Amino acid sequence: MRVVAEDGADGAGAPTRPPADVPSVRAALRLPGGPVDLTAIDPRATPAFTGDKAAALADIAAMAPRLAELQEKLYAQAVAGGARRRVLLVIQGMDTSGKGGTVKHVIGQFNPSGCHIHAFKAPTEDELAHPFLWRVREQVPGPGLIGVFDRSHYEDVLIARVRNLVPRQVWSRRYATINRFERGLAEDEVTIVKVFLHISAEEQKERLLARLDNPEKHWKFNPQDIDERAVWPEYQGAYQVALEKCDGLAAPWYVVPSDRKWYRNWAISRLLLEHLVELDLRYPPGAFDVESERKRLLDS
Amino acid sequence: MRVVAEDGADGAGAPTRPPADVPSVRAALRLPGGPVDLTAIDPRATPAFTGDKAAALADIAAMAPRLAELQEKLYAQAVAGGARRRVLLVIQGMDTSGKGGTVKHVIGQFNPSGCHIHAFKAPTEDELAHPFLWRVREQVPGPGLIGVFDRSHYEDVLIARVRNLVPRQVWSRRYATINRFERGLAEDEVTIVKVFLHISAEEQKERLLARLDNPEKHWKFNPQDIDERAVWPEYQGAYQVALEKCDGLAAPWYVVPSDRKWYRNWAISRLLLEHLVELDLRYPPGAFDVESERKRLLDS
Repeated sequence: MRVVAEDGADGAGAPTRPPADVPSVRAALRLPGGPVDLTAIDPRATPAFTGDKAAALADIAAMAPRLAELQEKLYAQAVAGGARRRVLLVIQGMDTSGKGGTVKHVIGQFNPSGCHIHAFKAPTEDELAHPFLWRVREQVPGPGLIGVFDRSHYEDVLIARVRNLVPRQVWSRRYATINRFERGLAEDEVTIVKVFLHISAEEQKERLLARLDNPEKHWKFNPQDIDERAVWPEYQGAYQVALEKCDGLAAPWYVVPSDRKWYRNWAISRLLLEHLVELDLRYPPGAFDVESERKRLLDS
Repeated sequence: MRVVAEDGADGAGAPTRPPADVPSVRAALRLPGGPVDLTAIDPRATPAFTGDKAAALADIAAMAPRLAELQEKLYAQAVAGGARRRVLLVIQGMDTSGKGGTVKHVIGQFNPSGCHIHAFKAPTEDELAHPFLWRVREQVPGPGLIGVFDRSHYEDVLIARVRNLVPRQVWSRRYATINRFERGLAEDEVTIVKVFLHISAEEQKERLLARLDNPEKHWKFNPQDIDERAVWPEYQGAYQVALEKCDGLAAPWYVVPSDRKWYRNWAISRLLLEHLVELDLRYPPGAFDVESERKRLLDS
């Protein structure tokens, strides 16, 4: 006998309720469509959140057990229920925008067993010998997992474009390739959440200074980061194009104002929560008869 | 000019101090050498710890920031300093002994970016077509990482032996192969920490009953787990042989009494802390001149 929980019953059948009385951060961070102007988005803004830092930290703490439960259901559906659903968080942003901090503080709330995190570095010779999506496909999270890309295939239309790493005719074709790739993932039950961590050039300067001023942070400092500041407008332009051209319904971009770290962590936690809630996740029923198994166990 | 912190100065040069006034859990959990008798080790004991559950939880919380700092130093040494050192925690134990719980509660204290976690399942056809260590080598953590094996190559001398998955002449040779493999890892700067989560058959029964009694836990229940209880003594015997034959100085076993989950989490946190402290980790100095970089940054 297959045990199936009754509809509406507590326990395995009960989905986690959607958050009430809070404006949707998904709606607040989506782009309106058409050309993107990042200068019109304040990096210190806190869309969909009206409280202060303390309130944000309290809300993040309140979200943690709900996120953990939803992650467990996602994982359980795959392990015991044969489901393929997985989540992929793509994190992009300028140096010091908080990609690593997001992994530490937001993804750190989850059970590490259910996460697949990959940081994409400058491609190796071997990777360069393959199509640009080759190394990315290798890192797509398996069923039941929450995958995280710290940088991603978008570098192939960002630094590759700004620094002329490949000819224009090569990078200009990549937007369509990326859109096909992401649509394919979405059809294969990957819930894609792409966040652009939007910081100001002034905030970046502050954060780099802080690294220079603290010997324990010197390992994070790279003199090249200063050289990259000279082409800040070119990077913003390249981001604007990527945000406009690759903003499909299957793989939407969210622009997260990130000058305030607490807002960034709150917004991305909330984004993940809203996406996970929408999946209507449930613990899968066991494919066994509880009573006969209990008897076998007690006799063992 | 290369910046090198002065000896004894605060900051990049200061190693984390070793824990004082606490008995070494490493010493308390090591095997004395010679034949191993697991029946002589109480699964409810709490070696090197005299407090209660609340005290253990408080101590775990107190260890978390120290573990996080040491992990960051380990990671920084590899990323910016070119070091190869990494840590590999191998977790073995019977069903329900707490392998997953250890990853969730102990490894969950670390920055997920610096962890590489792999759960070894029954080998695939492809894996079976290779030598048994092939899939294991693929998962050895890279420089700077804390790797975790949830099950490991030891399954190849445990279930493979108990269930006759391969002939005796095959599994009996594997102990020496494992010792050579682990010595090679240690020579390649892998700090290996192997823990056997020691639970009683009665505690396992309780934990399986708890899974049966909670529909939200049914996905974790496998009727086969009950069948495996019939060969509990054979598994304990196979563990005893593995613990005896593969207990090299380069890759020691620690027997962690695990009937009490809070002690298990405390002991493994402490084991990792003691091993990390012994590595004398330091933030690597930056390979740049701080003053000239500050000037360049302020001008940018």
